Amino acid sequence: MMIPASINLGIELQVLAEAENSSAHLAATSVGDYRDMGTVLAFAENLDVITFDHEHVPQEILEALTARGKSVQPPASALALAQDKLWMRESLSKIGAPLPKWARVSDVAELDSFIQAVGGKAIVKTPIGGYDGKGVRVVGSASDASDWLSSSGSTGLLAEELVPFDREVSQLLARSTTGEIKFWPLVETVQREGICTLVRASQQGLFSEGVQNRATEIAQEIAEGIGLTGVLAVEMFQVGEELLVNELAMRPHNSGHWTIDGSVTSQFEQHLRAVAGLPLGSAEMTSSAVVMANIIGGKSEVFYSGNTGDVETEKQILGGALAKAPDAKIHIYGKDARKARKVGHVTVATESLPESERRAVAVAVALGAENLS
Amino acid sequence: MMIPASINLGIELQVLAEAENSSAHLAATSVGDYRDMGTVLAFAENLDVITFDHEHVPQEILEALTARGKSVQPPASALALAQDKLWMRESLSKIGAPLPKWARVSDVAELDSFIQAVGGKAIVKTPIGGYDGKGVRVVGSASDASDWLSSSGSTGLLAEELVPFDREVSQLLARSTTGEIKFWPLVETVQREGICTLVRASQQGLFSEGVQNRATEIAQEIAEGIGLTGVLAVEMFQVGEELLVNELAMRPHNSGHWTIDGSVTSQFEQHLRAVAGLPLGSAEMTSSAVVMANIIGGKSEVFYSGNTGDVETEKQILGGALAKAPDAKIHIYGKDARKARKVGHVTVATESLPESERRAVAVAVALGAENLS
Repeated sequence: MMIPASINLGIELQVLAEAENSSAHLAATSVGDYRDMGTVLAFAENLDVITFDHEHVPQEILEALTARGKSVQPPASALALAQDKLWMRESLSKIGAPLPKWARVSDVAELDSFIQAVGGKAIVKTPIGGYDGKGVRVVGSASDASDWLSSSGSTGLLAEELVPFDREVSQLLARSTTGEIKFWPLVETVQREGICTLVRASQQGLFSEGVQNRATEIAQEIAEGIGLTGVLAVEMFQVGEELLVNELAMRPHNSGHWTIDGSVTSQFEQHLRAVAGLPLGSAEMTSSAVVMANIIGGKSEVFYSGNTGDVETEKQILGGALAKAPDAKIHIYGKDARKARKVGHVTVATESLPESERRAVAVAVALGAENLS
Repeated sequence: MMIPASINLGIELQVLAEAENSSAHLAATSVGDYRDMGTVLAFAENLDVITFDHEHVPQEILEALTARGKSVQPPASALALAQDKLWMRESLSKIGAPLPKWARVSDVAELDSFIQAVGGKAIVKTPIGGYDGKGVRVVGSASDASDWLSSSGSTGLLAEELVPFDREVSQLLARSTTGEIKFWPLVETVQREGICTLVRASQQGLFSEGVQNRATEIAQEIAEGIGLTGVLAVEMFQVGEELLVNELAMRPHNSGHWTIDGSVTSQFEQHLRAVAGLPLGSAEMTSSAVVMANIIGGKSEVFYSGNTGDVETEKQILGGALAKAPDAKIHIYGKDARKARKVGHVTVATESLPESERRAVAVAVALGAENLS
């Protein structure tokens, strides 16, 4: 999704894609393993700026790129926080960001003691590698996490209180290498089984001014505190008028996909501008009320990575979906349909949040979104 | 510019590009001559629908594709009108579209007689092949066009009155293979030396309701009358409250580039939907006032087709341009900068037409637009 923005700005984008059939392969100039030092260094040889669409590139590779004079954005030290949830909690605590109660637990006694302290139930997370609900478990006793504890070694696990939140929200910003920052409006995210299913953005009424201001304040403190460049999504819990930081994503994020069709500058264009040190664009909304619906699962005739498939059936399904809302913007990722897999999204912008949501959901369901039906 | 729309809708787009260094080469699956029957038939073999980003594919090739059962959109019979201005004038006259006074002239006597009849000056056009002011000449006497007359044979030339227009306008629509039609709002186009330099679109005040209604009425009559599918731009002269048809473009057109950033459905997505027989999208504006400024010429550091170039200078120029308007949407076509060549465009959407124009022009000038400075 960064490709159209790069073409428009005349920035030559080179992509190291993981596999021939990945979405990024649409623009891939190389295919290879991002965990392989030689592959990444060879790929990066003639590049000016290196950035990422996930946070999993190993630290030693990031540091080797930096040592060779490459501009790595966001810098390795910031990405380290996204790669290790314990390091993130420690760093955010130092910055003073509001967090759920948390502890590093290395054995049964420590975990049981934390569970007692937070009221009998806690969330346990493996510090490295989890996403979309993976590596996360709700526990009522340390025995529920004994398998993870025994393999976590001296690093331990992250234990957190179960926050009784009113809703989950995400504050998206971009910070340029020049220090310039732009904020999109705070959005509400709706999760089902740990996967984001809906995002709601509105020019008015969705959040109190106090909560909106607090969200940008927290996100700015974090971005500046960790030296972040590019797009940052700060996922938070709202409890009354309070916000607590849940997760950070240091890249264009699913909670910002609505910006492609609902904001003057999309998160993808903004990320490119930010990491290249160009002036940032306006992050204003272009409509009053925007809803983005993820498509998890999807009908296999529409969602496939090859150029085969039954064209007539595909046309029928796609036509049926488009007919449900002439203002729906459909985004198909070129991935094969598969249970629990995000294969696309639908955005609708109208004057009314319920109306945008009704239409976005109708189109997504017509395309086979298992998360919305 | 059709590529992002095709990816989003999951429609596999195959492009026959003219040359390795053309913009379309970004997505080219084949490179070859669209005038060569064998090349085009081989390219089209596994395609379901064939469409065009210009109108110059020879009729015999279009007919051969149709004879092989391919869905050619728009159909050959409609494209024939865009390929021959005399045939267009004859066909539009039959449909009853309002036209400038015109005549087919084959010799000096006929041309001189026409010039007298329209007041001493006329426009002469070669019926085939002209665009962007080429193949068009203002004459005060037949001797001014004697070279063209002598080579025009029995076909002759198109002679037209010089319309004393108040302004030039363009009505864009899309018509699906199902017959469904959607209109974008009528826009004003500003030409300099036969090349479009600015396009103005507004939700209110730019045109009287009468003129807007007349424009959609004329465009619909033409689209249905000639069996057009896909996007049609009807370029017209406005004289008082009257409209006269000047030219037709049967494809996404420069006067519709503003729709990418200023309308719910871009002309490129709409064209794909229309030729594929999918439901059309909303053609509503997303902002009150949108101005698109073409970049003719351009600074060579920003506008080049290769991946070489002075990155620091490019960044400085691009950064300077972006800093002039955080809401400017820049579109660089990947063509080398060259005098009198369209190499990109800038769109700005605000609440005010003069403000949108001021910003779009400032950014385009900073990028080296020779047509605006």
